[in-house]
Amino acid sequence: MIFRQLFDRETSTYTYLLADELTRDAVLIDPVKEQLERDLRLLDELDLKLKYVLDTHVHADHITGAGYLRARTNCQTALAQVNATRCADLQLTERDTLFVGGLEIKVLETPGHTNGCLSFWVGDRVFTGDALLIRGCGRTDFQNGSAAQLYDSVAQKLFTLPESTLVFPGHDYKGMTSSTIGEEKKFNPRLTQSRESFVRFMSELKLDYPRKILEAVPANLQCGLRGSSIGGHEAHQDAALDI
Amino acid sequence: MIFRQLFDRETSTYTYLLADELTRDAVLIDPVKEQLERDLRLLDELDLKLKYVLDTHVHADHITGAGYLRARTNCQTALAQVNATRCADLQLTERDTLFVGGLEIKVLETPGHTNGCLSFWVGDRVFTGDALLIRGCGRTDFQNGSAAQLYDSVAQKLFTLPESTLVFPGHDYKGMTSSTIGEEKKFNPRLTQSRESFVRFMSELKLDYPRKILEAVPANLQCGLRGSSIGGHEAHQDAALDI
Repeated sequence: MIFRQLFDRETSTYTYLLADELTRDAVLIDPVKEQLERDLRLLDELDLKLKYVLDTHVHADHITGAGYLRARTNCQTALAQVNATRCADLQLTERDTLFVGGLEIKVLETPGHTNGCLSFWVGDRVFTGDALLIRGCGRTDFQNGSAAQLYDSVAQKLFTLPESTLVFPGHDYKGMTSSTIGEEKKFNPRLTQSRESFVRFMSELKLDYPRKILEAVPANLQCGLRGSSIGGHEAHQDAALDI
Repeated sequence: MIFRQLFDRETSTYTYLLADELTRDAVLIDPVKEQLERDLRLLDELDLKLKYVLDTHVHADHITGAGYLRARTNCQTALAQVNATRCADLQLTERDTLFVGGLEIKVLETPGHTNGCLSFWVGDRVFTGDALLIRGCGRTDFQNGSAAQLYDSVAQKLFTLPESTLVFPGHDYKGMTSSTIGEEKKFNPRLTQSRESFVRFMSELKLDYPRKILEAVPANLQCGLRGSSIGGHEAHQDAALDI
């Protein structure tokens, strides 16, 4: 497998490129709009055909590159069925497996950070979006998030994967690039708590909303292709808080 | 092998942790002083014994964590013989191989960015410091750098490794985390030039000196343990420009 981890410095977002070495079919997980040219150049240099762009969820902190990549490459875009608008070619659920050349990408529903969060399990590694971060997890206070649901997603799904499974998260803010399921089961300061104290801890975070949420959420429901041009400020706010 | 790539956001520096899964012996390549506690915590959590800290070169943009890590773990520090002061426990040359549990770390002399640059070749991957960056290379205008020498280091050593060898550089400023020798042979815009045009290109870069050079170079000659406390500004400048 060809594998690349890519970083967007402004939003500390990780994008992942996976491809089959023989067929040259490729998938991008969580591309960032501002990195479109970088990502297209890499696909071109490595002689890869982009088959799918998978978003782990409707991001609130950056705009996905999905729609732009589709326009340039004819790939298909994908979101969780629960969030997918007509824009997404594929509406994914727990029962789905995607095939990219010889790669088998198993879809896991891991809601809680948002109600439509997915993780993608590919052999010895899992791409957890904002459900499970390295020694942390995504917030649960908007987009129908739920701390109790996130706890169950991690405990009942991600933490049941083999302990050696590499964890590749959607973000990291401290310069970590990967972890393992075994490590997070032992050392994640949030998810080693009891369900009850995790829920209380998350309810007490009182974080400011992400700077780009009012632009990013409505845009990302349209594969990144609609942003500040739709409606006024209030319409954005409604959209952001309603999903 | 346990393998972790770590990032220092302020200086865009990559640090690498390699360890033997069975013996738990570990090595850090190019640790950053400011990330000392992060790196020590990770070693502790993973139950690793730090055996060596290897600096690919005397860095001009950040201060190494080598001396601090030695003080906290009893590891040994290493630098290229040509730069090594008494501070370095090991003075490395091309003929050296380090053993860390079952890991075999081959030392390659790859001067040109500085006169003492080393690369570390470990199985399917090579840690190139600032000799070879992803689609780039380190500057050659201080610390006895030489564009001609850098060209030869890359062409005659790094580019003779198997094409599938993963390249892990000392820095990246565009969110790339790895490459391969084959890719760099094809797409590195500097090192696919002729030797003559590469030397001319590098001589025309006219870059400002790194912001921290006057502090970093003298400190790094002492494993990071001496910084702004030694001598006055002029003394620093002399030291920085003299090596």
